[in-house]
Amino acid sequence: MKSFNPPIRTLMGPGPSDVHHRILSAMARPTIGHLDPAFVSMMNETKEGLKAIFQTENELTMPVSAPGSAGMETCFTNLVEPGDKVVVCINGVFGMRMKENITRFGGEAIVVEDEWGSAVSTDKVEQALKDNKDAKILAFVHAETSTGARSDAQSLCKIAHDNGCITIVDAVTSLAGCELRVDEWEIDAIYSGTQKCLSAMPGISPVSFNERALNKLKNRKTPVTSWFLDLNLVMGYWGDDAQRTYHHTAPVNTLYGLHEALVMILEEGLENSWARHQKNHELLRDGLEAMGISFLVDKENRLPQLNSVFIPKGVDDVQVRSTLLNDYNLEIGAGLGAYAGKVWRIGLMGHACRKENIALCLSALKDTLK
Amino acid sequence: MKSFNPPIRTLMGPGPSDVHHRILSAMARPTIGHLDPAFVSMMNETKEGLKAIFQTENELTMPVSAPGSAGMETCFTNLVEPGDKVVVCINGVFGMRMKENITRFGGEAIVVEDEWGSAVSTDKVEQALKDNKDAKILAFVHAETSTGARSDAQSLCKIAHDNGCITIVDAVTSLAGCELRVDEWEIDAIYSGTQKCLSAMPGISPVSFNERALNKLKNRKTPVTSWFLDLNLVMGYWGDDAQRTYHHTAPVNTLYGLHEALVMILEEGLENSWARHQKNHELLRDGLEAMGISFLVDKENRLPQLNSVFIPKGVDDVQVRSTLLNDYNLEIGAGLGAYAGKVWRIGLMGHACRKENIALCLSALKDTLK
Repeated sequence: MKSFNPPIRTLMGPGPSDVHHRILSAMARPTIGHLDPAFVSMMNETKEGLKAIFQTENELTMPVSAPGSAGMETCFTNLVEPGDKVVVCINGVFGMRMKENITRFGGEAIVVEDEWGSAVSTDKVEQALKDNKDAKILAFVHAETSTGARSDAQSLCKIAHDNGCITIVDAVTSLAGCELRVDEWEIDAIYSGTQKCLSAMPGISPVSFNERALNKLKNRKTPVTSWFLDLNLVMGYWGDDAQRTYHHTAPVNTLYGLHEALVMILEEGLENSWARHQKNHELLRDGLEAMGISFLVDKENRLPQLNSVFIPKGVDDVQVRSTLLNDYNLEIGAGLGAYAGKVWRIGLMGHACRKENIALCLSALKDTLK
Repeated sequence: MKSFNPPIRTLMGPGPSDVHHRILSAMARPTIGHLDPAFVSMMNETKEGLKAIFQTENELTMPVSAPGSAGMETCFTNLVEPGDKVVVCINGVFGMRMKENITRFGGEAIVVEDEWGSAVSTDKVEQALKDNKDAKILAFVHAETSTGARSDAQSLCKIAHDNGCITIVDAVTSLAGCELRVDEWEIDAIYSGTQKCLSAMPGISPVSFNERALNKLKNRKTPVTSWFLDLNLVMGYWGDDAQRTYHHTAPVNTLYGLHEALVMILEEGLENSWARHQKNHELLRDGLEAMGISFLVDKENRLPQLNSVFIPKGVDDVQVRSTLLNDYNLEIGAGLGAYAGKVWRIGLMGHACRKENIALCLSALKDTLK
């Protein structure tokens, strides 16, 4: 067993995205204790940075010490009680995963289905909530990483509240890559990941809960099933400054990386980051369409940071991706679930969302498809 | 918000321990995809390295993508079914946490209590298992991080098997710091952490399950509650080489660090690492005892890597630890739970377990206590 030196790739898949050298360097700074006053002040800055990019004043805004799937589980294990009816929207893999979470925590999942590649239908959701007046939660994916479809989070939250529900929103792929306004849109509980448009290394899941979500948590009749993700306990460490009670050992170096990623996004400006993703998406789109390649998702529901395109007829999916990886050190993503073998997912996320990467991708793809 | 540059500390608390520069540098290598063939081959090496330091041939030996508490939860959520009787040994904080896990997953906890600072009593455990013939699991902490007491894992496992139970063992602080032989001692399910005697950065939890434990999992009548930690799903990614099915995004860079930590331990030799911890413990012990400082744990049950010592009478706990941190950049640990304010926990873990650190610690403590 020898030291591992990874190949140098360009990461244009569905995540992880390219991590900037500043962030890699930040991770390599010396480890300090998770209760060190210097670390605690970095934690406070991280919370403030996350509030800025979530566009929220929620006091409970923090990074969960595990990947996006654990962020999802944090929302469901804390908010779903046995017997709770939850309307869950499925238009791709991550809606299915939400449903799985609901049933495992004893909830009753009412499924609203849409075609993979479509946005969640607000009409169908409205109908489902009218048909299930005792539903307590609406859960949906803002940015479906499996297809690249964006749903109208603001309208869905309004419908939920009009029908007495709180909302759980998956923003793993949307955070920092396209418009997302937690407070203005009245999202109640939200989770994301660090390895997409934040361009930090994978392993951390930022979450944010508002008062409505916290009330649901406070009024639980049964304990939260997970000890590790129980926010009543986690908040003893991430919550009140005076406390900082030991709960688990925070992933110190990974959090250095997240902190640096937040510094970089705030330097660029959040709205500038959104605009950069949109502008570069259009550049990539024009290039792909000029090659005769078409998109899975309609223009109006398309995420700029995740471009699902149909694999041209007669082209060998695996062979093309292997050639891109082996000859060009370029990673693009395979299709997932229903679209395995049918689409490629080309990510333009965070630091990977640069003109030089688009030039590389278009040129390498053109050569490979010849 | 500006880039965070941590102070340079010497970490002699209960973890995280000092991380070697080789490991910090490894973490800063460029991120690649979690399904990249180069990454998959590193995953295989990591599994082999973990098997070597756990001293096991268990096929299911892998790093959970979250801190030690999630490793604990992985064991309990997969192995405890609602209604299962579990005998759990409490001689410190982490036994209490085990009990919490058992009840949250619907198990019935039968508690065997010992004084904090003592080893788990094999006699009491034997009696508890005889009194509870329908018990299915014995859970105990090999190395109690809250006190520095080591329990006799081999004898406890034998008693468990003689009484038809499988075992869940907490080895967060013991792995690589003192003798631990998973196969020879017939430990069925075990979890550890990366931030103790592996001296890798916090955030990952190595686990290992043998066939007996896997059988318990396979014969469950109810689904595992956690989706994120469900080994039936996680094994699709970490298990069979041919598969590598996406489950969650692995913490790529943190795993680079773990891989490098394993390379370093295997270079040193596992038994040499155990011996180094013991030798340096004796050096520290002699120095502390010469200052009139005494140990919480009896000599025969004392962990070399975690030295709990009584705070001398009339000494201000917080002030001494602050002086050590602020004037000497030296972190030692506070007491936990029953021993808060009464003991210090001085770690000699992994890369922190060096003669120069002992010299610094003894000298700084002598000056501060003057």
